[in-house]
Amino acid sequence: MIGRLNHVAIAVPDLEASAAQYRDTLGAQVGPPLDQPDHGVTVVFIDLPNTKIELLHPLGDASPVAAFLERNPSGGIHHICYEVDDIGAAAARLRAGGARVLGDGTPRIGAHGKPVLFLHPKDFNGCLIELEQI
Amino acid sequence: MIGRLNHVAIAVPDLEASAAQYRDTLGAQVGPPLDQPDHGVTVVFIDLPNTKIELLHPLGDASPVAAFLERNPSGGIHHICYEVDDIGAAAARLRAGGARVLGDGTPRIGAHGKPVLFLHPKDFNGCLIELEQI
Repeated sequence: MIGRLNHVAIAVPDLEASAAQYRDTLGAQVGPPLDQPDHGVTVVFIDLPNTKIELLHPLGDASPVAAFLERNPSGGIHHICYEVDDIGAAAARLRAGGARVLGDGTPRIGAHGKPVLFLHPKDFNGCLIELEQI
Repeated sequence: MIGRLNHVAIAVPDLEASAAQYRDTLGAQVGPPLDQPDHGVTVVFIDLPNTKIELLHPLGDASPVAAFLERNPSGGIHHICYEVDDIGAAAARLRAGGARVLGDGTPRIGAHGKPVLFLHPKDFNGCLIELEQI
């Protein structure tokens, strides 16, 4: 069912410093900061040859990343995203397997404009998993 | 400098259950458990089309994963690994950029038989980063 690893999302307390570190110290291809007000984050994409890293920083008052950074002030890996062909079929299979889909259990439109859902980290070794329909 | 994302390593409290979950619930290609006594872990590789996931479980009395699981009993993402062409040049560039290389700062042979080094998580947004020479 799951396909490519679409991205690894890292919550960071200082987006500019982290972007500079990936660009200058690690020598990666780093994009400009992009505000995504509908998702409560500002994102910097780091393009690797086979996948991407998303640096996430809170935007606005209801950011899903703010509480994570309160618990992890120096930042940390926030979630990993796997691609699926059919998000509805994926959700059904996951529920049948006993995994909890966050929210009301139905896919919503994610930060890339594609249908996504998130799985409960307690069901997956403490990892927040996003599934994105490609 | 950094190239492909070689793998995401997830520490898990129950290797068999986690492997079954990735195979049956997430429908991924899951390999057999492999003991790596020199590295204090038993590993299950999950092959995705563009990268891999490594499920890590402690093996032996001096496992580097045991303390992580004590802090995170349900598991969690332990490290991410980026590929580099020249590990010596990478170490020199990182030290010049002020990043701390763990251990004595020199590369050692990693779990895939290639030279690796690890960077201090406090220097990289709370993420433990492995660099592997390919």
